[in-house]
Amino acid sequence: MVRDSAQQVKTFFEPCTEGIGAKTIFRKSGDIEVFLPCIMKFELTSKDPKSSARAGVLHTDHGDIQTPIFMPVGTAGSVKAVHQRELDEDIKAEIILGNTYHLYLRPGIELLEQAGGLHKFTGWSKPILTDSGGYQVYSLGANRKITEEGVIFKSHIDGSKHTFTPERVMDIQRTIGADIIMAFDECTPYPCEYQYAKDSMHMTHRWLTRCVDRINSTEPKYGYEQALFPIVQGSVYKDLRQQSAEYIASKDQWGNAIGGLSVGEPHEDMYAMTDLVCNILPADKPRYLMGVGTPENILECIALGIDMFDCVMPTRNARNGMLFTTEGIINIRNEKWKDDLSPIDASLGGYASTFYSKAYLRHLIISKEILGAQIASIHNLTFYLWLVKQARIKIQDGTFVEWKNKMVKIVSQRL
Amino acid sequence: MVRDSAQQVKTFFEPCTEGIGAKTIFRKSGDIEVFLPCIMKFELTSKDPKSSARAGVLHTDHGDIQTPIFMPVGTAGSVKAVHQRELDEDIKAEIILGNTYHLYLRPGIELLEQAGGLHKFTGWSKPILTDSGGYQVYSLGANRKITEEGVIFKSHIDGSKHTFTPERVMDIQRTIGADIIMAFDECTPYPCEYQYAKDSMHMTHRWLTRCVDRINSTEPKYGYEQALFPIVQGSVYKDLRQQSAEYIASKDQWGNAIGGLSVGEPHEDMYAMTDLVCNILPADKPRYLMGVGTPENILECIALGIDMFDCVMPTRNARNGMLFTTEGIINIRNEKWKDDLSPIDASLGGYASTFYSKAYLRHLIISKEILGAQIASIHNLTFYLWLVKQARIKIQDGTFVEWKNKMVKIVSQRL
Repeated sequence: MVRDSAQQVKTFFEPCTEGIGAKTIFRKSGDIEVFLPCIMKFELTSKDPKSSARAGVLHTDHGDIQTPIFMPVGTAGSVKAVHQRELDEDIKAEIILGNTYHLYLRPGIELLEQAGGLHKFTGWSKPILTDSGGYQVYSLGANRKITEEGVIFKSHIDGSKHTFTPERVMDIQRTIGADIIMAFDECTPYPCEYQYAKDSMHMTHRWLTRCVDRINSTEPKYGYEQALFPIVQGSVYKDLRQQSAEYIASKDQWGNAIGGLSVGEPHEDMYAMTDLVCNILPADKPRYLMGVGTPENILECIALGIDMFDCVMPTRNARNGMLFTTEGIINIRNEKWKDDLSPIDASLGGYASTFYSKAYLRHLIISKEILGAQIASIHNLTFYLWLVKQARIKIQDGTFVEWKNKMVKIVSQRL
Repeated sequence: MVRDSAQQVKTFFEPCTEGIGAKTIFRKSGDIEVFLPCIMKFELTSKDPKSSARAGVLHTDHGDIQTPIFMPVGTAGSVKAVHQRELDEDIKAEIILGNTYHLYLRPGIELLEQAGGLHKFTGWSKPILTDSGGYQVYSLGANRKITEEGVIFKSHIDGSKHTFTPERVMDIQRTIGADIIMAFDECTPYPCEYQYAKDSMHMTHRWLTRCVDRINSTEPKYGYEQALFPIVQGSVYKDLRQQSAEYIASKDQWGNAIGGLSVGEPHEDMYAMTDLVCNILPADKPRYLMGVGTPENILECIALGIDMFDCVMPTRNARNGMLFTTEGIINIRNEKWKDDLSPIDASLGGYASTFYSKAYLRHLIISKEILGAQIASIHNLTFYLWLVKQARIKIQDGTFVEWKNKMVKIVSQRL
């Protein structure tokens, strides 16, 4: 949204000063100081009495998100093997994720700007979150060099050289136009030496200041707001995680994320770090645990106070024939499903899970038919969205912990 | 349908003796002679005054088929990259094709029988046609040996040895349970020596007699009827095609097919053979031109009197980024579509063709995203079904030839 003067802006927006997380801010844009409305309002609607689980609503310019929520991953502008209307109508996704690294390389930010942002380019009109590219760059291994200034990396597609700095990544995310954009961080591997984790965390903190400065001095491009989430790092070291969480909280952004977990560490470490960080991050802002995880991980981390999740697991594993169901985990390639003509998951409901049988899906996956990936992807995502929706209902009912303790056993058992 | 006595059968069915193609027959089944109703009724509803084009309705136990019709190919029980409900609701397919060779190998006829046939196994409840495996076996090249008895071939999946005889292929198609089943033939390659084509044609004719005998001495398995279509062969030799068409017509089956075309011969030969054969095959039965073809081929062959088509082109080419549209042919990989944010084919209508832009589809295809194959496949099939539906309307209006002459130019031009 281009604003010619503070006066004009004031006539466009109603300030929102009520509700948890609501606030008004002033920002410098070019030579004029403009008044900006509440970017994103987070309402906590229920709190579980026996755990740190909570239910809420996150309001964005592209609609509301009921938390806790799982965000399907749409790496390069497509949740793999799933149509946009299936995401909306069948899976009932409320927000999806895009990867800055992939979108920057293909289709490229020039085309995305021409299209009016990722929503218009893909046809997905509900909220989008983009990561910062930090994780993908970390995954490039030898093909990237990290310095204080930023990261120089080689494209996995054509080997071409590119540079991501905190400022550049904010500009790219402005152009992609997601509702929630992530600070540029270094995601440390596991295991990670203490000194490396500490130095990296401090650099991520310095990068965050540069991200915030860049965001505060630029405007959204497409007439709707974008909320920055900083990322807590610190590997599996308690003192670092505490320090990072305190620093990130002090930046007072619209929500907060926990990165650098689910990278190979034991689940106990993931839970311990998440618990520690959740106790520091402000309760009135959404908490996003990046890249997590299995249905069990998600339930346990909801209990620790996490509101938002994303993971490629439901779609990637779907393509390999691993199904998450209301009764447990199915490897559909196993001989035991060969002549099981019952629906994939009758209890779950929905088109893909009830229309197609296990035996048919097994045949498709074994025969490498694209439809197999399509069915399994819709099914797994429908299950993940169902799971967080059930968690929300149980939190509202005050029965979350009992339900969660029962469910983690069911959803993690192999059928 | 198991029939205990002729008497019982008579109470089940009303004979249909009206309408073109309707008839009643008697068949021997085990020790009792049973009365069978009209298996399939074909009604010719319009005839174009200036060409041999005609419009009709083919009634089957799984519903009516408006002709001329295009049948999407569902090789191994799946029209690649397309959900069953998309086939029905978006593409508006009225009948799909399954490949006996592929289905026999995977999922195998034991499982298909257990499921109650291919309709139930896949969830596709409209008509299905299965080929006889003749074409696939021909495609196996060195991995098959053709004798008078049948064909011994090696599976392309695991190299295992199998034998297809006319009798065996009829039994397999009984188990798959398609509404229309094809006689076992040898599909000759192009070019083909006259003597080979002649000998092969005679063998195909002898095989046909064995197919008819087998069908007449067996029953459908799932309570609905199956109609056998014999196949005219004879390569590109007029005398052979004439002889074959006369022989096939004399077998007086429910419909007739033309095979051995669209295997590399010039289009002029394809049209000449089709024209010649259509003039011999009875007008009151549906005529099916196997494996054809481009939109232009289909329009030209409708003009020659063909009622049914199938081809992998719309789906296979879709996966490679070639789109058939109401304005011509698009190679979506071309640079010129890079920033074309207009719908894939606004005039065509339908979800895939209007919701997604050319630039987005290009991005998906270039990025090898599965969704690219999905969108392009739905689009191309929607176009093919639209094309034959338009042809039908123009035949009914009496304006087919003028429209066809205009359309062949449009649909074959490269954009």
